[in-house]
Amino acid sequence: MKDVAARAGVGLKTVSRVVNGEPGVTPDTEHRVQEAIESLGFRRNDSARVLRKGRTASIGLVLEDLADPFYGPLSRAVEEVARAHGALLINGSSAEDPEREQELVLALCARRVDGLIVIPAGHDHRYLEPEIKAGIATVFVDRPAGQIDADVVLSDSFGGARAGAAHLIAHGHRRIGFIGDQPRIHTAVERLRGYRTAMEDAGLRVNDAWVSLGSTAPERVRAAVTAMLTGPDPVTAIFAGNNRVTVTAVRVLAERERPVALVGFDDIELADLLGITVIAQDAATLGRTAAERLFRRLDGVDDEPSQVALETVLIPRGSGEIPPSADG
Amino acid sequence: MKDVAARAGVGLKTVSRVVNGEPGVTPDTEHRVQEAIESLGFRRNDSARVLRKGRTASIGLVLEDLADPFYGPLSRAVEEVARAHGALLINGSSAEDPEREQELVLALCARRVDGLIVIPAGHDHRYLEPEIKAGIATVFVDRPAGQIDADVVLSDSFGGARAGAAHLIAHGHRRIGFIGDQPRIHTAVERLRGYRTAMEDAGLRVNDAWVSLGSTAPERVRAAVTAMLTGPDPVTAIFAGNNRVTVTAVRVLAERERPVALVGFDDIELADLLGITVIAQDAATLGRTAAERLFRRLDGVDDEPSQVALETVLIPRGSGEIPPSADG
Repeated sequence: MKDVAARAGVGLKTVSRVVNGEPGVTPDTEHRVQEAIESLGFRRNDSARVLRKGRTASIGLVLEDLADPFYGPLSRAVEEVARAHGALLINGSSAEDPEREQELVLALCARRVDGLIVIPAGHDHRYLEPEIKAGIATVFVDRPAGQIDADVVLSDSFGGARAGAAHLIAHGHRRIGFIGDQPRIHTAVERLRGYRTAMEDAGLRVNDAWVSLGSTAPERVRAAVTAMLTGPDPVTAIFAGNNRVTVTAVRVLAERERPVALVGFDDIELADLLGITVIAQDAATLGRTAAERLFRRLDGVDDEPSQVALETVLIPRGSGEIPPSADG
Repeated sequence: MKDVAARAGVGLKTVSRVVNGEPGVTPDTEHRVQEAIESLGFRRNDSARVLRKGRTASIGLVLEDLADPFYGPLSRAVEEVARAHGALLINGSSAEDPEREQELVLALCARRVDGLIVIPAGHDHRYLEPEIKAGIATVFVDRPAGQIDADVVLSDSFGGARAGAAHLIAHGHRRIGFIGDQPRIHTAVERLRGYRTAMEDAGLRVNDAWVSLGSTAPERVRAAVTAMLTGPDPVTAIFAGNNRVTVTAVRVLAERERPVALVGFDDIELADLLGITVIAQDAATLGRTAAERLFRRLDGVDDEPSQVALETVLIPRGSGEIPPSADG
């Protein structure tokens, strides 16, 4: 700590504030302190923390799918916060299986992580109560905790989806399809609710054939898009419930002659060049916010668990502004 | 094991073959056994393995960057193999920092992983020798091990880049730029060597201004592309050394009036719709091959360490087939 303070040209208290994520430090000073920490080597810092707190400094992150690009920036943001606090990050994936989530969480606890950030696959987290009582701080991100009281950091899936569907309605669409993830996933249900609310707000009916929840596997999404476009009461626009759905929907729509409007939940790399209108979540801010809450807990802050919902942003790029076709 | 065999309708030996990745099982039977393992629950299987081998079943994977989409399918493939072997996967990221790589590797060893798959950031892995002697199997993937003898699974970066540059030359280009990652990264150097060899094979000179290695940050890549296109001896085509470079190069080229040819190393999601010609590595096969080697070691196979280089595939989609402009 003394070496860091000397190198950054600040006092010990300032270094402590930066390391513990406390307020009262200008961004410039924080940057200098971080640089000093990095240049002096993380190792020493880590050991210092272990000695000071009497425990290994590491946190665990349980993801849902290692190959979903949405979790890349989220994981990296968690890692950056962990690193700034002198802690290692260890990841694992539940592969969307509640049993595997529990197994992985308990395996990380057994490997002496100090805290956990969990993107839950399951809906019952009472299995974590003994661990939390034993002092393992836990923050849930992207989806809420089930049956326990814990810190939660979400995006506003309901509000974002409602805004996305309203955007299509504002561009003249009356028959809009919704294709989302499995109905047991919280965000899928919330986004469907947002879509239904926007339709209701506009006095529009929703044909059952326009709603399809299920796997985000390309074959399943392809079949759903095709059915909605070719059925007896075809849609003129599609709302895609997450980035995996959007990617396949874009491919299917690119093969069709008549343009079909599309808004996707989640931004996608290169969506700007393809003109895809999206409701963007800020995955990095989700990760950073969750990690900062976790380290507040690890630093002994003991207030009531709270739930944060981050705003989403509508980014119009063309696909969501296509009007209904002439006979639509 | 008995429950799995009964459910899958096969003998105990077949289950054992599947779990240990041994040959002599048809894909259909393997699938049935995997399904039976999954439906009976991973937990039991894991415990069985712990009891049988007297150790916790877990492997560690050290990545380079959690946010690089190239590592998504690689990680997931490693996890699938781990799961089929009744082991948990724990990930961490070196953030391309050799010191952090070492720290993370040793932290995972201290957390009792049975084996390690490492995408190395550093060039000296002698620090791993005591761990390997203590029985922690280690496989390097994507880049070679430094100063120790270990199993390595790579893509053929040299051959792939040579084929990519030769493809541009075959389409009439004589002035081709190469933009790659940091020169301390093995794959960056190998791909540059492939590009230089293709130019030499065709009797073409390489102007120093056409080669740019460095950070893959968008600002750096943007400046490099712009400099090559507007300098005194401008290029008519660009070879992008990895997926992070390609993404920025595509954006910069989209802003220019005159078409410029582009071939990128690594496939990218939606590159098909954008018509981007790439040299594709099979990230999932890299991960799967590395994980299978690791489990062979864990099952006691003790032959000499070996190096595997997987073939790359050129996928022409339009951007690499653009001829040089009239004055090129």
